[in-house]
Amino acid sequence: MRILGIDPGLQTTGFGLVDMDGHALRYVASGTISTRSVSQGELPARLKVIFDGIGEIVARYKPDAAAVEIVFVNVNPQSTLLLGQARGACLTALVTNALPVAEYTALQMKQAVAGHGRAAKAQVQEMVRRLLQLPGVPGSDAADALGIAITHAHVGSSMARLGQAAVLARSTSGMYRKGRTR
Amino acid sequence: MRILGIDPGLQTTGFGLVDMDGHALRYVASGTISTRSVSQGELPARLKVIFDGIGEIVARYKPDAAAVEIVFVNVNPQSTLLLGQARGACLTALVTNALPVAEYTALQMKQAVAGHGRAAKAQVQEMVRRLLQLPGVPGSDAADALGIAITHAHVGSSMARLGQAAVLARSTSGMYRKGRTR
Repeated sequence: MRILGIDPGLQTTGFGLVDMDGHALRYVASGTISTRSVSQGELPARLKVIFDGIGEIVARYKPDAAAVEIVFVNVNPQSTLLLGQARGACLTALVTNALPVAEYTALQMKQAVAGHGRAAKAQVQEMVRRLLQLPGVPGSDAADALGIAITHAHVGSSMARLGQAAVLARSTSGMYRKGRTR
Repeated sequence: MRILGIDPGLQTTGFGLVDMDGHALRYVASGTISTRSVSQGELPARLKVIFDGIGEIVARYKPDAAAVEIVFVNVNPQSTLLLGQARGACLTALVTNALPVAEYTALQMKQAVAGHGRAAKAQVQEMVRRLLQLPGVPGSDAADALGIAITHAHVGSSMARLGQAAVLARSTSGMYRKGRTR
């Protein structure tokens, strides 16, 4: 299964793709979509850059699933609104490309990647490098996006294990408990 | 020129279309896109309903321009974030359909429609009914969307007048002052 992770932002949206083969994770690609070429006032045009950028990534790498970071609520409400609009463009791009979308907080991502939720940015970058056996540390936005993809891979394999356990439980007791999926 | 006005919301997005022919405004259509059929937790699916709904309206009515209400920052940051994401889906739908997008605040819309920025919802509905000679008052979300379209029509004809004035000024003095447009 190929997972596309997204770290949404109005200026810079990070993306990262990993292949999950059983328990093994393999790096596919990562990078950023930048809207810096569009002037700050042109919000609709900037959202189009994000939407089209994600469309191109999906067309090129053909992921099976997507996972998007749940963005922080900023102290500045205007920034929160702008970030929300960028995230809206990301989610819209994914669902219009018929991708199932999971959502994780930065806390969940840090726990999955670094083992605790208070990991610093540099620690996330280093752990992503190690987990995916990269030659160098990825940029901060790309590392977050790869971290989100890794988080989804972990959750996916945990749910597969739960599924196996459920099958086992059903075969021994006739009971079957279905996990909550999106 | 046909103008599509949009009042974005996560639950209900209002839309309204008016034709501007010189100074005359003619009602074309209005209504709402509702995401209530999708469960509240399914944010990506709700954004897809908004995106697809706007796409269908554009395909059916073929507007030449779009105008979108600038949403309020809510006291609840989480609501601001949700509203931002809905607005992001709206803007993305418009720009991917190659429509020029203008943005107006509710204050600007109320001034254009009712003559003052503190107009109540019912007053906006009644003024929209009169301006477009509708048989009955439109619903609140549709009225706001029609009001945004009317605002853009007013600004458009003002800018056309300014353009004529500029041409006049240029022909008499050789000076040409270009207005700031989006």
